[in-house]
Amino acid sequence: MKAIEILRNKAPIIHCMTNAVSINDCANILLACGASPIMADSIEDAEDICSIADALVLNLGMLNPMKAEAMLLAGKTANKKNIPIVLDPVGIGASTFRQKWANKLLAELKISLIRGNTSEISFLASGKRGTRGVDSDITEEKTGSQIEKVQECAEKYSCIAAASGKTDILSDGKKIILIHNGCDEMRLVTGAGCMLSVLSAAHLAANKENTFFAAAAAFTQMGIAGEIAQKNLKENEGSASFRIRMIDAICHIDDEMMRKGANYEILA
Amino acid sequence: MKAIEILRNKAPIIHCMTNAVSINDCANILLACGASPIMADSIEDAEDICSIADALVLNLGMLNPMKAEAMLLAGKTANKKNIPIVLDPVGIGASTFRQKWANKLLAELKISLIRGNTSEISFLASGKRGTRGVDSDITEEKTGSQIEKVQECAEKYSCIAAASGKTDILSDGKKIILIHNGCDEMRLVTGAGCMLSVLSAAHLAANKENTFFAAAAAFTQMGIAGEIAQKNLKENEGSASFRIRMIDAICHIDDEMMRKGANYEILA
Amino acid sequence: MKAIEILRNKAPIIHCMTNAVSINDCANILLACGASPIMADSIEDAEDICSIADALVLNLGMLNPMKAEAMLLAGKTANKKNIPIVLDPVGIGASTFRQKWANKLLAELKISLIRGNTSEISFLASGKRGTRGVDSDITEEKTGSQIEKVQECAEKYSCIAAASGKTDILSDGKKIILIHNGCDEMRLVTGAGCMLSVLSAAHLAANKENTFFAAAAAFTQMGIAGEIAQKNLKENEGSASFRIRMIDAICHIDDEMMRKGANYEILA
Repeated sequence: MKAIEILRNKAPIIHCMTNAVSINDCANILLACGASPIMADSIEDAEDICSIADALVLNLGMLNPMKAEAMLLAGKTANKKNIPIVLDPVGIGASTFRQKWANKLLAELKISLIRGNTSEISFLASGKRGTRGVDSDITEEKTGSQIEKVQECAEKYSCIAAASGKTDILSDGKKIILIHNGCDEMRLVTGAGCMLSVLSAAHLAANKENTFFAAAAAFTQMGIAGEIAQKNLKENEGSASFRIRMIDAICHIDDEMMRKGANYEILA
Repeated sequence: MKAIEILRNKAPIIHCMTNAVSINDCANILLACGASPIMADSIEDAEDICSIADALVLNLGMLNPMKAEAMLLAGKTANKKNIPIVLDPVGIGASTFRQKWANKLLAELKISLIRGNTSEISFLASGKRGTRGVDSDITEEKTGSQIEKVQECAEKYSCIAAASGKTDILSDGKKIILIHNGCDEMRLVTGAGCMLSVLSAAHLAANKENTFFAAAAAFTQMGIAGEIAQKNLKENEGSASFRIRMIDAICHIDDEMMRKGANYEILA
Repeated sequence: MKAIEILRNKAPIIHCMTNAVSINDCANILLACGASPIMADSIEDAEDICSIADALVLNLGMLNPMKAEAMLLAGKTANKKNIPIVLDPVGIGASTFRQKWANKLLAELKISLIRGNTSEISFLASGKRGTRGVDSDITEEKTGSQIEKVQECAEKYSCIAAASGKTDILSDGKKIILIHNGCDEMRLVTGAGCMLSVLSAAHLAANKENTFFAAAAAFTQMGIAGEIAQKNLKENEGSASFRIRMIDAICHIDDEMMRKGANYEILA
């Protein structure tokens, strides 16, 4: 399978409704992977902009009521057009407002992929609060119970659920895949999760017939980009140089590098 | 003519009302070129902040109603003070809301420069929809009809119109200049156009008597910065390093480098 | 004293209510120093998010009425929890709206630290307008009268006041410390002050018993980071590379480097 070639040939337009923290990195990683970002988050713009897009990303970081209403409108446009929607429930365990809107969006829209960290995905599966911050558990070891939570989340919302962490866990409710790519430095880059969500949207938009494979390809590409950035990091460099090198790597990863670098287990 | 020296001596304050995607890059490129950015986009702040500025930038990316109203207020302050206004009609072809506000701002304010990509400028000239995304046509070859569109846009709104692309086209309705500086890597940096708009505002603020020359100087400086960044790019580096090197280059370009590097044609 | 070790051991969560210009840099510098950022600025989210935080930052850049109301709510939560609040009065001299809200926040909340540039701190001390832009006086030499203004500001609001500049001035109303670390390149990085405010919040959260020392440690760490970045800067590099290297340096500074690099005077 040639996920990168498929993505670069499709060059999909990704409508991102996201937070201000990582919005620049999200746009730049989309350009780096061969997609084209378009950002718009007002009620007035939501439908128009989504109508020219190939996928929609709804990121709940820094949510406010106007943006939330705009997300619902854009989401309905996306469903009508039958383009994939990626939901990123940033910090959902810490905010009842974000919980209310995640529930509303999940109830009224057909979501293709929920991409969060382990505590966010667990929260959606069980309603149990565990979030310390937005980046709290990225280095936690995954356990059997975490795999179950991802599968539960996927079943509950009839979509793909994907939890990032030291090991990434993806499930569509039946199939389960673990991805071991990536490195610890990624947890020192704000919005690494947000970037992975938009990269996933790009892969889903390019490969609509095989969304589970597409999501796994996005996680693999991001993980390999982290590994390349780590390898290229020089003495005295830190998290800021790492971030630059990670986005640089997205420009260069091809299907050959994906095939050689992918480090995954298919559990079911 | 010493556009860089004039700009660095004036050190103008640029009030930017812009989108969250590229707002950090816009502020940093202004500091790099010798100007001083100030960002404020609420109705409550618009007039106060504009009253200390030497130029105003109205960027329609991620527009919402409150920001649009604030732009109108700031714009009126700018016109009263007789400082230049740069309008950047980001994604105008894709959004009727942005179209409505572009028309309102162009009707109620005296705009000095409209800076967009070719499809955005064409849309303003003719009302014909062509936008795929916000970055769609940056590598398109310019044709005679595109030059006509830029000239039409300038005539229609009695201002300078400037379309970025592989070749940049600037016109004040009569004069036409083509600028061939720049490189393909620029289209992989989100907000390269937004950055060019604020850089143009800085040059216009510094050289109010000769705004067409000032706009051409801004486009030339940006293009040369891209060329320097491309030349300095190392193997394995990509779009993120390119962006850093492009802003770095803005710090170093002087009038000597402008004179040697400028690659333009005066058509009329 | 081991400010860096204390901070890395505490790994505090910092709730930032800030402007879009530097929000990404603020999150990344917090991760680099060992803290964990969480951003939320809507009225609906303010209390929930603040209730899991160890410190709160209220940054008045790009203020709007909704964000201002949310700041007041979050501030009350922070005071109830007895966690430190850092107020950054960005551009206060230029905006009556920001002045009104700074006064309201200072009247209704217990603020631990006001961090601004010299003109912002002077404005709060005396109400006298001096702001040219947001970055106007960073290279001004401090005079005796500036030290007095910082002390007055601290007394007036019963908190620590800290003014960044070529020489940083910190006072709690009685004690005064001058910090000579840092370099001129820092004034070409947008949001260097905002970053220092969130870094200060991280140090205050980690060392609540000794907030004056904690604030001085933050200023020293930032100044040393600037010096390291300057030393590592290569020919042809400029302000964008400098910013990357400054955040990189925050990852590496330890208490040994603080002890060796600190350059300060205790005046009272």
